[in-house]
Amino acid sequence: MSVKVEHRVHFYETDQMGVVHHANYFRWFELGRVEYLRSIGVTLGELISEGILFPITEIDAKFHSPARYDDLVEIETTAVELTKVKLVFDYKITLKGEEKILVTGHSLNVFTDIASGKIIRVPENFHERFRLI
Amino acid sequence: MSVKVEHRVHFYETDQMGVVHHANYFRWFELGRVEYLRSIGVTLGELISEGILFPITEIDAKFHSPARYDDLVEIETTAVELTKVKLVFDYKITLKGEEKILVTGHSLNVFTDIASGKIIRVPENFHERFRLI
Amino acid sequence: MSVKVEHRVHFYETDQMGVVHHANYFRWFELGRVEYLRSIGVTLGELISEGILFPITEIDAKFHSPARYDDLVEIETTAVELTKVKLVFDYKITLKGEEKILVTGHSLNVFTDIASGKIIRVPENFHERFRLI
Amino acid sequence: MSVKVEHRVHFYETDQMGVVHHANYFRWFELGRVEYLRSIGVTLGELISEGILFPITEIDAKFHSPARYDDLVEIETTAVELTKVKLVFDYKITLKGEEKILVTGHSLNVFTDIASGKIIRVPENFHERFRLI
Repeated sequence: MSVKVEHRVHFYETDQMGVVHHANYFRWFELGRVEYLRSIGVTLGELISEGILFPITEIDAKFHSPARYDDLVEIETTAVELTKVKLVFDYKITLKGEEKILVTGHSLNVFTDIASGKIIRVPENFHERFRLI
Repeated sequence: MSVKVEHRVHFYETDQMGVVHHANYFRWFELGRVEYLRSIGVTLGELISEGILFPITEIDAKFHSPARYDDLVEIETTAVELTKVKLVFDYKITLKGEEKILVTGHSLNVFTDIASGKIIRVPENFHERFRLI
Repeated sequence: MSVKVEHRVHFYETDQMGVVHHANYFRWFELGRVEYLRSIGVTLGELISEGILFPITEIDAKFHSPARYDDLVEIETTAVELTKVKLVFDYKITLKGEEKILVTGHSLNVFTDIASGKIIRVPENFHERFRLI
Repeated sequence: MSVKVEHRVHFYETDQMGVVHHANYFRWFELGRVEYLRSIGVTLGELISEGILFPITEIDAKFHSPARYDDLVEIETTAVELTKVKLVFDYKITLKGEEKILVTGHSLNVFTDIASGKIIRVPENFHERFRLI
């Protein structure tokens, strides 16, 4: 399953090259991840209240063409693998309504216990929602 | 008393205008505040471990001349008032070794209790160090 | 005249205190300013193409209550004074649909010539739109 | 060749999880890259004045253990390949003076012509310095 979310590029996201600074694309991937999880009924707040975090352990991006100030971009987030121990997502950023790809990416999150910091399996009630992908 | 701290301007702190984005100067004021407190033996970690926060409640800045990528700037932080209930600082940012002022600012922090969020007085052991200004 | 724009609080805008880092509110004021200008038919791109910038010269904020991750906030931007040489705005940030004020602020921008960096008067065609406030 | 640069973790680099937000590590990689180039006598300003940019086209990171507020970290940047058309770097972030790895990463930059945006070969005078790796 894929979920799309729009983002208007802010002036403060640009750098001296006149384009979006590359570190910001990783923030946009986060927007995509959050919206994906929201779409299957999972919020960060709910996970935290169960004592669960899901830190990023690996992420990468390829920058094909830069986004610019005031562009309306679309972040498409695709769940590749959602299991009891990890979340794997692919990302594709385009200008809204256009085919041309600006940025692609891939990330891995693992579930960890807030108290111990150890990797854990999420409870069954979350896992059921992950099956919806 | 005044405390100076240096900062090398990062590329990611610039914006499309080719100068430092103004919101970053408030981050540099924070650097100044942290170094000021460190110089009188107070760390954020110590305050938190006593259940105390000191959120910003007011801040302002005047932007006289922009800082640019790779500039070495100096943030001079002056304690105007450090009492049991508040911290008032003035800031002055210059290029290191130059007189010309880039940015000036002023801030107010109040001490609050982490648990209740209410404004509180800091314990005597902190207050003694504040007298060193 | 006032213009409102919504903003969903991103996870990356929070800090270790569990609330939005205060420097981000100045970025949200920028969102408000951009949307205000857009509403009267002025875009940054148009100004730049005429060789005009309008850097911030003064800004301040009062932080009444913090915004938190995933809050839907509303930034209300009011033009106090739009003349041929300066733009003065007031800002008010609330949770959308609520009265309680989170942050208030005030800013001053002046028009400058890109080439010389000197303060200038904007051409009449911009000034006419500023009269719409 | 490897070049090390220190960085004190700022409060504004943390997020609600109480650790550094992962997007910031890509900014630290940039610090490393800038210092590496400076060490072989190449500055961004010099490249730009010759009409050359070197945008990032690929980057990745693995997050082994988080950095925290006020940590003194060390970013070690190793040149893997510096040719007339591209720069390839590896990164390793540790706490200063400790062996434990916090973050590793890898990036690819290509040289482009500012005017056309096309990939180009850098002039010989830069290439000679790249041979110093």
